[in-house]
Amino acid sequence: MSELRQDPTTKDWAIISTERSKRPHQFAPDGQLEAEIPAFDEKCPFCPGNEAQTPPEIMRISSTEGSDSAPWQVRVVPNKFSALSLGRGTITRRLSGELFLSLDGMGVHEVIVETSRHNARLCLMEVPEVERLLSAYRSRYNALKTHPYIRFIIIFRNYGVRAGTSLEHPHSQLVGTPVAPPYIRRKFQVATSYYDDMGRCLYCHVFRDERDTGDRIVLETDEFLVFHPFASRYPFETWIAPKKHCSSFGLITESQLSELAWVLKRYLSKMHSLLKAPHYNLMVNTSPTENEENPYYDWHIIIIPRLTMIAGFEIGTGISINTALPEETARFLRQSDTLVPIP
Amino acid sequence: MSELRQDPTTKDWAIISTERSKRPHQFAPDGQLEAEIPAFDEKCPFCPGNEAQTPPEIMRISSTEGSDSAPWQVRVVPNKFSALSLGRGTITRRLSGELFLSLDGMGVHEVIVETSRHNARLCLMEVPEVERLLSAYRSRYNALKTHPYIRFIIIFRNYGVRAGTSLEHPHSQLVGTPVAPPYIRRKFQVATSYYDDMGRCLYCHVFRDERDTGDRIVLETDEFLVFHPFASRYPFETWIAPKKHCSSFGLITESQLSELAWVLKRYLSKMHSLLKAPHYNLMVNTSPTENEENPYYDWHIIIIPRLTMIAGFEIGTGISINTALPEETARFLRQSDTLVPIP
Repeated sequence: MSELRQDPTTKDWAIISTERSKRPHQFAPDGQLEAEIPAFDEKCPFCPGNEAQTPPEIMRISSTEGSDSAPWQVRVVPNKFSALSLGRGTITRRLSGELFLSLDGMGVHEVIVETSRHNARLCLMEVPEVERLLSAYRSRYNALKTHPYIRFIIIFRNYGVRAGTSLEHPHSQLVGTPVAPPYIRRKFQVATSYYDDMGRCLYCHVFRDERDTGDRIVLETDEFLVFHPFASRYPFETWIAPKKHCSSFGLITESQLSELAWVLKRYLSKMHSLLKAPHYNLMVNTSPTENEENPYYDWHIIIIPRLTMIAGFEIGTGISINTALPEETARFLRQSDTLVPIP
Repeated sequence: MSELRQDPTTKDWAIISTERSKRPHQFAPDGQLEAEIPAFDEKCPFCPGNEAQTPPEIMRISSTEGSDSAPWQVRVVPNKFSALSLGRGTITRRLSGELFLSLDGMGVHEVIVETSRHNARLCLMEVPEVERLLSAYRSRYNALKTHPYIRFIIIFRNYGVRAGTSLEHPHSQLVGTPVAPPYIRRKFQVATSYYDDMGRCLYCHVFRDERDTGDRIVLETDEFLVFHPFASRYPFETWIAPKKHCSSFGLITESQLSELAWVLKRYLSKMHSLLKAPHYNLMVNTSPTENEENPYYDWHIIIIPRLTMIAGFEIGTGISINTALPEETARFLRQSDTLVPIP
């Protein structure tokens, strides 16, 4: 018989459906590894030499700090096909009739080009390269968080066509929205209500309980915990969480950033190798900008490999059907320390 | 510049992104029409003669009512790989530690085999066939709504692999859950709060405003309205709504059922022909069973063609990015009255 489990941070239910369950290794699709990708693609707007094909650069990290002529290592540019932008609009709401509320698509939408190498893979990069990328995440977050029009900032990475991207060149994205997303507000309502009742941070407590339970943990370091959460919505859904309270990704320290780079690379290599280069979405979840420092929320990263499809039941009810046991998938990734070489 | 629009029934925002916008006809994928499907597949568990391959039948509709030997037209069976089932479990919650809540996967998961013809298509069926199917929906809904373990019933249809199904034989599904989904509860909170403030049904009012605005309407009959909602989350997201207040699909009358069959077939044919047989999810949204008759909610059908992908931004924020203007997609379907013949 299957089981319903509730995510304590959202109150959403997931059906852990053992009837349909696959063994963890069966989620790795056959023959998914892509054709070899060249290190440079002359048609790619993110490859070196094609800088003029992107809108004007916002930021770059170069190998020799301060020298404009040094080759860049990370490059941040506005998204050419931006979902939101700071044009000549306002954030004043318009009401059409009595019910239809709208506002201009004010906000930011940036692309973080992660490396100059077209065929690099985050999981195969050196740790200092990953650290550089995370440091670009933090810089852009902190540069935008006080913007008067921006209420929430999300940084994310779509890897592969099944995760919604068609661009091969490694890149992340940042979107700053002019509204606080209702989904985030609901998470805050759950967290503040818990804080008011229990006098402590719900997320800290969830992370500690996951650590104490232990059987859903994949990796642990001094500062971070990597686990497949109790009420995982998708097979191999992964959370990377700080062990010390920290409400915003913008507040992460230098030494935490280094350790996070190691953890992220290590976890992504495991996933890449054992699930055969799955396509995935990675999201940095943090507090709304107007309330960045608070005692009831912890920033965390969520990684969702796109191994299954959502359908009518999930869209219509918001309840997910997960065909894998998080205890089993975590054990599968935890125990497999011999990483298969990856092309 | 793009625009953010709020769905008045959920308070969720959609970004209508004109920068990335396609023209409506460009959403029709090239060469998507499937290879010809046979009328009978001896390996299909839903084809006539293979009835023993499904769990014991729950209900059938036959061409000659009352005769067991008559060939069946619609057949309802338990899902062989059910997400929920009424086994030897309870709906008592278990608390593991202080935070992790779970319960047995009690509930029902039925398959409604829509026709005996393996290669039939809902949009090409005769109206009386569609009516028979809808009548099976209503029968099963009404048979299960008083079950003491069931809090919510959703009926849905996944059409095509991109919509999450691999079975070709036309079928719908019904799931009865032992919890009221938080997503549904939130819709009810919005609706009851509006009802308390304004003294009327939010849904009736939204439907009336859509009708008065007019430019998102695709079809209208005496009893039903078909439209692409103001804050559509996906290109060609479609709502089929009753024009008279009716809180539950279980309460739909015989004559409404006939008219709905015509409307559904007509709309699906338009979509099938003009979007070249898109894969889609269809969901019947109705009230939780314990509160079936109420003055603040209207049942409605939502159809979502799977033409685009959701990615990190949507998963992380709950805000959708829609690359089509509902006014344009509605006009595209409304004006095109010459249906292309479909193989």
